[in-house]
Amino acid sequence: MSRLLLLSSAMAGDTGYLVWTRPLIKEFLSAHSTPITRALFIPHAGVSKGFDTYLDHVRAALDLGDITLDSLHDSDDPESAIRRAEALIVGGGNTFALVSRLYDLNLMDVIRKRVGEGLPYIGWSAGANLAGPTLCTTNDMPIVEPPSFRTLELVPFQINPHFIVDKSAGHHGESREERLAEYLTLNPNSRVVALPEGTALRREDDRLELLGERDAWLLMHQGTQRLPAGQPCDGLLMSKVIEY
Amino acid sequence: MSRLLLLSSAMAGDTGYLVWTRPLIKEFLSAHSTPITRALFIPHAGVSKGFDTYLDHVRAALDLGDITLDSLHDSDDPESAIRRAEALIVGGGNTFALVSRLYDLNLMDVIRKRVGEGLPYIGWSAGANLAGPTLCTTNDMPIVEPPSFRTLELVPFQINPHFIVDKSAGHHGESREERLAEYLTLNPNSRVVALPEGTALRREDDRLELLGERDAWLLMHQGTQRLPAGQPCDGLLMSKVIEY
Repeated sequence: MSRLLLLSSAMAGDTGYLVWTRPLIKEFLSAHSTPITRALFIPHAGVSKGFDTYLDHVRAALDLGDITLDSLHDSDDPESAIRRAEALIVGGGNTFALVSRLYDLNLMDVIRKRVGEGLPYIGWSAGANLAGPTLCTTNDMPIVEPPSFRTLELVPFQINPHFIVDKSAGHHGESREERLAEYLTLNPNSRVVALPEGTALRREDDRLELLGERDAWLLMHQGTQRLPAGQPCDGLLMSKVIEY
Repeated sequence: MSRLLLLSSAMAGDTGYLVWTRPLIKEFLSAHSTPITRALFIPHAGVSKGFDTYLDHVRAALDLGDITLDSLHDSDDPESAIRRAEALIVGGGNTFALVSRLYDLNLMDVIRKRVGEGLPYIGWSAGANLAGPTLCTTNDMPIVEPPSFRTLELVPFQINPHFIVDKSAGHHGESREERLAEYLTLNPNSRVVALPEGTALRREDDRLELLGERDAWLLMHQGTQRLPAGQPCDGLLMSKVIEY
């Protein structure tokens, strides 16, 4: 069992914070087999603002109605909070900070296990990266060293959030596509789903669908395929070819 | 003893590959206390092209005259090649690949030791990141997992190469300044020298100078200082406040 909503970004275009995600998150939570009364927010990717502030922003922006939003950082017993959670919402920020802190709290295994048992998982940006097999396709700066690059592997492919064709004139850093091509050169059996801002993947067990109004991309060492907006892409869940 | 030339980038503006670096590298090598006849290139940050091709490009672009450019990847005994080297030139590419491969070859300690004994060290981009205490301020994607984020610590501050003020309209990924501010939030005792393309640091023992025609920036948790083009900045070498 697996219920996932993996969002590229908190913002899309010129809309406000989490505005574009709100209908997707509400629909995803309301479609659960049993009514959800509380969701657990994981703010641990946040660096520039404190966790309290982060929680306040998300509570105000998501406006979940009858669903109470608790936060992992308010719990004295984080593992128990994960065990009791009815849904997880993992916010964006820095992927290295998120992964380091979850390893420090010894929560990676229990999150993986519970989501595998059907606990609904929502994540945007770093929270979407966390759902892949490794953090290797994050866009974030490695500001802290995690014990491992392994992440939750809730899907068998890598995710690149905030995907953009971004070669800027006059600057000689690598473009996003060049970075991902280098990843695939060193990891030729891996696959990367590149999600432009405003797109998301929704998994319901063996079904996977691309949400949003823009296409996404499947990047492989052998080449690139377009994933059309609003279409199923269940095949991405079928084979597990990532070596690590 | 320490002789370092740390360059932000291989390219600057619309000039060709390594063109802007050539006079700096030639002058740096010719200023050595004994004549240098051979330099050792380390191509191990290269991912998208093979090491042979990378070496050919650098040989053609640098045009070192009487100095022969060998490459580490051509050596059957890399540690011995480092021990015998008269100068090191570490090319750019992906910092995670560079660091992983040098750890795999067990070369980090011997490089650090020899450069500490006065072996001239030249590096651009990833090769400049390698000279700092950690790879935590690289711009590169973490496409492979190195055994450690610790790097050579040939200078006591972090380096951010290809520095740019780069918040692009309509995209919601973090800007470079936001990324480095997050690094300093989690590492408040660290300092980062942000080098725009076309700038370099030259260290001669206790002296440090910013080369190039643009200013650079010293980023600290307490605030930012401008490092004026062409000026000494020896003070950066004085205190070692980085905790890791």
